Amino acid sequence: MNEKPLSRRDVIVKAGLLLGGAGALGALPGCGNDKVVAAPAEPAATPGPQVADFPYQQHMPLLYQLSVAGVQEPAYHAYYAGGCCHGAYSALVGHLAQTAGAPFDLLPLDFGKFGGGGIAGYGSICGAVLGGVLVINMVVQDATARAAMMTELMRWYETAPVPAYVPAAVDVAEIGKTTLDFSAANMAALQVAPGSHLCHASVSKWCAAKGVSAKGADKLARCARLTADVAGKVAELINAYLKTGTYAAAAPDAATAACGVCHPATSTTKPVASGMACGSCHADKLVNHPAVVP
Amino acid sequence: MNEKPLSRRDVIVKAGLLLGGAGALGALPGCGNDKVVAAPAEPAATPGPQVADFPYQQHMPLLYQLSVAGVQEPAYHAYYAGGCCHGAYSALVGHLAQTAGAPFDLLPLDFGKFGGGGIAGYGSICGAVLGGVLVINMVVQDATARAAMMTELMRWYETAPVPAYVPAAVDVAEIGKTTLDFSAANMAALQVAPGSHLCHASVSKWCAAKGVSAKGADKLARCARLTADVAGKVAELINAYLKTGTYAAAAPDAATAACGVCHPATSTTKPVASGMACGSCHADKLVNHPAVVP
Repeated sequence: MNEKPLSRRDVIVKAGLLLGGAGALGALPGCGNDKVVAAPAEPAATPGPQVADFPYQQHMPLLYQLSVAGVQEPAYHAYYAGGCCHGAYSALVGHLAQTAGAPFDLLPLDFGKFGGGGIAGYGSICGAVLGGVLVINMVVQDATARAAMMTELMRWYETAPVPAYVPAAVDVAEIGKTTLDFSAANMAALQVAPGSHLCHASVSKWCAAKGVSAKGADKLARCARLTADVAGKVAELINAYLKTGTYAAAAPDAATAACGVCHPATSTTKPVASGMACGSCHADKLVNHPAVVP
Repeated sequence: MNEKPLSRRDVIVKAGLLLGGAGALGALPGCGNDKVVAAPAEPAATPGPQVADFPYQQHMPLLYQLSVAGVQEPAYHAYYAGGCCHGAYSALVGHLAQTAGAPFDLLPLDFGKFGGGGIAGYGSICGAVLGGVLVINMVVQDATARAAMMTELMRWYETAPVPAYVPAAVDVAEIGKTTLDFSAANMAALQVAPGSHLCHASVSKWCAAKGVSAKGADKLARCARLTADVAGKVAELINAYLKTGTYAAAAPDAATAACGVCHPATSTTKPVASGMACGSCHADKLVNHPAVVP
């Protein structure tokens, strides 16, 4: 585990193994010293799975499962080192590297730093969700299950009361800086279902509900815990898939399903291409719609 | 170029080079045959840059520039093989692998297939944009420039009249299936600025404007060309950055900037965390807002 990319030294060492161990070099054709006794041939060592050998489920140990608790706490702390996408991505990839080995251990752990605040602060997809999506994509072979798991992650996020995770140790970056009470006893009072998988809606709604700035320590404390929640959810999704080899996403909520009756993607006048919940952005369409003409 | 991950055979061959060529094996300590003449020592071969050696700007040739035309046509065709994210991602990474070498040539070209239709068809961020974001992230060392380039890509997408690309050869998948005229002469008549970087809004708006289904051949033809547009834009952004080492994103549009006066992220009552254009989702807030109380 924790195998590094092949270094020059590794190549020499591995070559020695391939050739039957350093002691066997003398037994090679062209080495004329018959007194050198060849060591018993070792099994040929081969480089492990490479990054291009995608997706990576095929390289994972039989019956492998992630530790949900093993990704949550690192995700929470990594948030403070590089944002929500980095938190989820580095915790999941780091855990996979440590417990499932190559090729996860050949990936850069800092790859997710771009995704914070809905990609470069743009308010697009929640970075923790995006980090999770990238890891699901790395693992899952079956394209149907992969899409269902990503849909389930984004749909779960819309309705989950978050933040929920209570860190084992509060990060030093937030101690003494928050104004809200993030203790386990008060966590339920801080929870708001985001309604949307977009950072913009998720953060703005929570901050407005709690009366805090989207640039302050309370927002950071909320998103650090939410990052742990998302990382844990991704671990659960992957575990469920690895157990059965399949995954079926939940259906959209009833209101969203009702929208689809008049707005199917196949309509040529009112087409809607979406798997998202409609109500978050189109709340005005949930009542008196279509407008009743007297 | 086109260097593959180290295979078992490669390790043996490279080890031979490291040891001074196959003919030099007999000159190793432990090989007692003094009659074997050591070949002149070759320079030690080292494995090239690995995937973990991130970001990859540091490994790219001096004065390197992508070919914009060299990514557009492959992106257009790859759309039909795996969707918009795959189109942009595989065209850009494939081009980088062929022209800049390792570690781009160690990456799986199919990694972007998850992102089609706004990630698994969910209508989130346009998959072509997401594919481009992932490639920008691979290349750019400077975090400020990286964020500015991603912001610029998403902001450009909101206002660009698309589709614009005219393929050199129309893909066999669409011949005889479209109902709209996608010829170069008619392209301007098909163009609509998406208004949002989200697939859901982008696709739904275009299909409604053109009176076509979001599940039909016209939608596919539009998004295939849009994928080429995005891939080309990403190549331009990376080229501009590689020339100067910096990048500064354009400011938000005037209406969006005006929203920020009353809705700064730092507000504790009406905070908005976003870099997006507001008008696409919140068109109702562009007039009579805040409502004038008589």
